Amino acid sequence: MYDGPPDTGRSETEQAIMDATLRALATHGYADLSIKNIGTEFDKSTSLLYYHYESKDELLLAFLDYILDIFAASIDPDAEDPDEELREFVSYILTDETDGPEVLAFQRTIIELRAQTIHKESYRAKFGDIETRMIETVKTLIEREIEAGHYREMDAEMMAENLMAFLYRALDVRVTGTRPESIDAMRDSVFFLLDNVMPLSGDPARPEDTSN
Amino acid sequence: MYDGPPDTGRSETEQAIMDATLRALATHGYADLSIKNIGTEFDKSTSLLYYHYESKDELLLAFLDYILDIFAASIDPDAEDPDEELREFVSYILTDETDGPEVLAFQRTIIELRAQTIHKESYRAKFGDIETRMIETVKTLIEREIEAGHYREMDAEMMAENLMAFLYRALDVRVTGTRPESIDAMRDSVFFLLDNVMPLSGDPARPEDTSN
Repeated sequence: MYDGPPDTGRSETEQAIMDATLRALATHGYADLSIKNIGTEFDKSTSLLYYHYESKDELLLAFLDYILDIFAASIDPDAEDPDEELREFVSYILTDETDGPEVLAFQRTIIELRAQTIHKESYRAKFGDIETRMIETVKTLIEREIEAGHYREMDAEMMAENLMAFLYRALDVRVTGTRPESIDAMRDSVFFLLDNVMPLSGDPARPEDTSN
Repeated sequence: MYDGPPDTGRSETEQAIMDATLRALATHGYADLSIKNIGTEFDKSTSLLYYHYESKDELLLAFLDYILDIFAASIDPDAEDPDEELREFVSYILTDETDGPEVLAFQRTIIELRAQTIHKESYRAKFGDIETRMIETVKTLIEREIEAGHYREMDAEMMAENLMAFLYRALDVRVTGTRPESIDAMRDSVFFLLDNVMPLSGDPARPEDTSN
């Protein structure tokens, strides 16, 4: 279940601006986003937006930092139980219908802003940071379970890249709606890795694999 | 090496319009695309564009059909050697720097138009068709190699979904530039599946995996 965004240490006003930006993006999409329609979603005076951010671009870069912080808060490399932390993280990304329109709006916004990396170098750097941070954290959690003797020896970075490819495809298809069957396939693939391939106790043969 | 787009059976004028649309999208991006700047890239009279297509939207839907046909021509479920066909297809998607700016422009255009599926149902249906057709074709080629006794027994559709997730992530990162290391990781993962996991003769243990 989704409990709302985590606390990212922003002031009340900054948090209200981030919430308004998310709502405006969800309603209007990136192409039609303006400070004016962010202001419409904002309880306080629109002039406060200009006080905090010089332009729409500056506000959106701050919004990307906010997203980065939310993701950073969604997975902790120092978590007490790394396997449990990985499972909670993948469940957070794989989310389902019961999590409601808020989560879908957030995910849609991420995918839409990410497409802008094609044209905007500043966005590219922020998304690069987010992706590298997530893959590094997943890698660290895997390495901790290998050291603890719970996971097999493996190339932890490659496994992290594979997990992220499946999660990214699931996130993308949930948002774009192009091929809903792929979401289930990605969920099955992620849990096949977590349940069968990674743990020493798992059986990495696929059910249909009769070669072993 | 890239030999230019395959023949998709379009008339000379239609082909010239598709080429002009690709160039205009590569130059201006989706947000700033207009019939006018497609016309600038078109050798003949802009009025010919209006003769063929009533609106920019209609032209772009025809352009998506063109992309679908190019992809369909890039992989043949009835190819004589299914394993070779799969390898040629993944190499086509994984492409590299030597393939030049044309291929990158084509890939960038696909990713940019795909993000529009969030807002446009007509685009969503076209991309859904493309993805389902590619996954079904990959599945068919895998099944043919299983039947021929060259590949292990496996869930061919799940393997096709996994291959497509890796290829899609590689394509996306090539275009967005967010995390270039991921392209190599995806290439390694695709060829690990093709060389080690899928063939009966392969050794599906990862090099670092000492559990077998």
